[in-house]
Amino acid sequence: MAFSTFYPQPRMLMGPGPSDVSARVLSALARPTIGHLDPEFIGLMDQIKQLLQYAFQTSNALTLPVSAPGSAGMETVFVNLIEPGDQVIVCRNGAFGERMRENVIRCGAQAVMVDSPWGEAVCLDLLEQTLKDHPDAVAVAAVHAETSTGVCSDVEAIARLAREYQCLSIIDAVTSLGGIPVKVDEWGIDAIYSGTQKCLSCVPGLSPVSFSDTAVQRITSREHPVQSWFLDLNLVIGYWGKDDQKGGKRSYHHTAPVNDLYALHEALLMLNEETLPVAWQRHQLNHEALRVGLETLGLSFTVSADIRLPQLNAVSIPEGIDEASLREQLLKKWQIEIGAGLGSFAGKVWRIGLMGQSACQSNVLTLLAAMASCLTTQGLNVDSQAAIKAASQVYEVAAG
Amino acid sequence: MAFSTFYPQPRMLMGPGPSDVSARVLSALARPTIGHLDPEFIGLMDQIKQLLQYAFQTSNALTLPVSAPGSAGMETVFVNLIEPGDQVIVCRNGAFGERMRENVIRCGAQAVMVDSPWGEAVCLDLLEQTLKDHPDAVAVAAVHAETSTGVCSDVEAIARLAREYQCLSIIDAVTSLGGIPVKVDEWGIDAIYSGTQKCLSCVPGLSPVSFSDTAVQRITSREHPVQSWFLDLNLVIGYWGKDDQKGGKRSYHHTAPVNDLYALHEALLMLNEETLPVAWQRHQLNHEALRVGLETLGLSFTVSADIRLPQLNAVSIPEGIDEASLREQLLKKWQIEIGAGLGSFAGKVWRIGLMGQSACQSNVLTLLAAMASCLTTQGLNVDSQAAIKAASQVYEVAAG
Repeated sequence: MAFSTFYPQPRMLMGPGPSDVSARVLSALARPTIGHLDPEFIGLMDQIKQLLQYAFQTSNALTLPVSAPGSAGMETVFVNLIEPGDQVIVCRNGAFGERMRENVIRCGAQAVMVDSPWGEAVCLDLLEQTLKDHPDAVAVAAVHAETSTGVCSDVEAIARLAREYQCLSIIDAVTSLGGIPVKVDEWGIDAIYSGTQKCLSCVPGLSPVSFSDTAVQRITSREHPVQSWFLDLNLVIGYWGKDDQKGGKRSYHHTAPVNDLYALHEALLMLNEETLPVAWQRHQLNHEALRVGLETLGLSFTVSADIRLPQLNAVSIPEGIDEASLREQLLKKWQIEIGAGLGSFAGKVWRIGLMGQSACQSNVLTLLAAMASCLTTQGLNVDSQAAIKAASQVYEVAAG
Repeated sequence: MAFSTFYPQPRMLMGPGPSDVSARVLSALARPTIGHLDPEFIGLMDQIKQLLQYAFQTSNALTLPVSAPGSAGMETVFVNLIEPGDQVIVCRNGAFGERMRENVIRCGAQAVMVDSPWGEAVCLDLLEQTLKDHPDAVAVAAVHAETSTGVCSDVEAIARLAREYQCLSIIDAVTSLGGIPVKVDEWGIDAIYSGTQKCLSCVPGLSPVSFSDTAVQRITSREHPVQSWFLDLNLVIGYWGKDDQKGGKRSYHHTAPVNDLYALHEALLMLNEETLPVAWQRHQLNHEALRVGLETLGLSFTVSADIRLPQLNAVSIPEGIDEASLREQLLKKWQIEIGAGLGSFAGKVWRIGLMGQSACQSNVLTLLAAMASCLTTQGLNVDSQAAIKAASQVYEVAAG
């Protein structure tokens, strides 16, 4: 094989993540590497912590980015909070609820499942019944924004139920953070993890997490040591620092991914400048425009409107359409990436992401034009101009 | 706190890692993010795998970069190879041997220690005796280049002993890979992990690993599931691919750190262009120049010459010198980072790294000038010009 420098094709990232990363974040990423114990870098860490607290809407002292992707954030939460023999209630309505179950089992704990069909939200009645039936359960785990289906579950209600039954609440906010409201303190969430490559529009590779004081107490008073050395928060705290440690001495745990943290800082700075409410509104607006446009093309949404995520749109594949070849055409001819269906949804839906920087008018209009063209290629009779006009009107109305 | 874009100070990284990252690698890092399942990206992954095989000098099919720093690479090796109840012989002659022990214990296994003092190499006689005394041991673990002490152990002999006693060999090559010979196949190493931020001069955040077929067989026929979901190679293999899968279908496991992998590819490409023998020679040459220069300044090396690492120089702190304030002065006045001592060596040694791009003439000469100046500030009478001249002669002789 001949090796050569890799120059990626320009892509419009409208799949389930990663999302488009801005030039501003890429430029931060590429600044010269400095040491992870450099006083300048310690100052940056303090800022990242505070910017993450804003993103999560929390004052939790234990708020930090895990030095690995979202899956490792999920694992961080489970290995630190769950002990062998624990009973954990896991809400499963898609691929990531299933992954939570696997994590619980690998901690030597028992997963009690609250199952809802793919494409539906977590059933609160079923959850409450399960809590009643399992008085020994120590935690309830649920996914806020199911990336595999595009469904939003009511994690505020889930956290409230968990609390009522003396359980910790564990929330997956990988795809929700920055795209829809996530209010850790107001909702009383005990442990939450996210990813950087979705609505934060940063490069993939880090997983922001946050823990309530109740959760921290459980971590620091565990009976069994945390099974992972790398993810043991009792050790990580020494590097990321307690609240009284601002700018102070940090003890070495592992080498932090310095450049990725430059990028995360910049992405969080952009969110801070835009403000959360405006970012949430932007995701909603672009979703509205996309929805109107796709519906004008004759496509329909898989998930019912009341539980639909604006940032991850599951669109049903029309009969007779070769979904894989359409995605291939979108990628090769239009440089647009959208997602295939996962698990139960494989071959049945496309997943169209409008996350972070990808949630913008030019992406939505380009996708509509491209979709119309690709559908036409496969023999569907669609009105491209009408779809673009309908979507444009959404933006015009919003602009006043 | 007022938040603002972070512009790092320019640093000369001569500590125990990260090392200086070239403009070429930083530029690769900042290329636009694409999807981790994009066919273009899959092609890049194939190249990374082959370039890593070259770096490790192996034809192992299971050779890939773990999506997290070196500590996670270490954990990947242990959680995949070790089962609860196993007996593992761990050679400990510094901080990272101790970390291996902690990993073994967290796997529910028993660590049998082969202890050598800090600053000395792993004692082969003691290892052989321990192997004789523990016929049930399944693996021998040792650190090639102890970053905490600057000592090189004979891992070729360690792997041979392990094999003689029917044990797998597990080698930490975090600081050795790219800086001194690491010959996985020739030495018969079964499992090895490294880091990107040392002699590969890439950004921190990834951990290259490689496993022999014997090791792979053990991983795929485990009795207990791997305790980590994120690091379970039985799942990761589906994404990074088997040998017969080149360019083929990859199944989603976690979102790969796309941009970090651009950077790793470029760093490995540079190593491939330079070739391993030339890179090893460059590290040795710069070490010689540094050694001669520092000795001319009256400083002495902590570790005896026959087991000294060229890329990580433990230098004894002269009596009467405030080591922390000297490091602070180097950083603030000269923009040079060197490392403090760890563990038993805290307050006793400086750790001067000559890793990857940092192993160059300008870094060595600048450090000598800076060291001389800082030592003088603290009242030591040193001859800066003589040190620089002595070091320069090493380069002149090498240039012919």
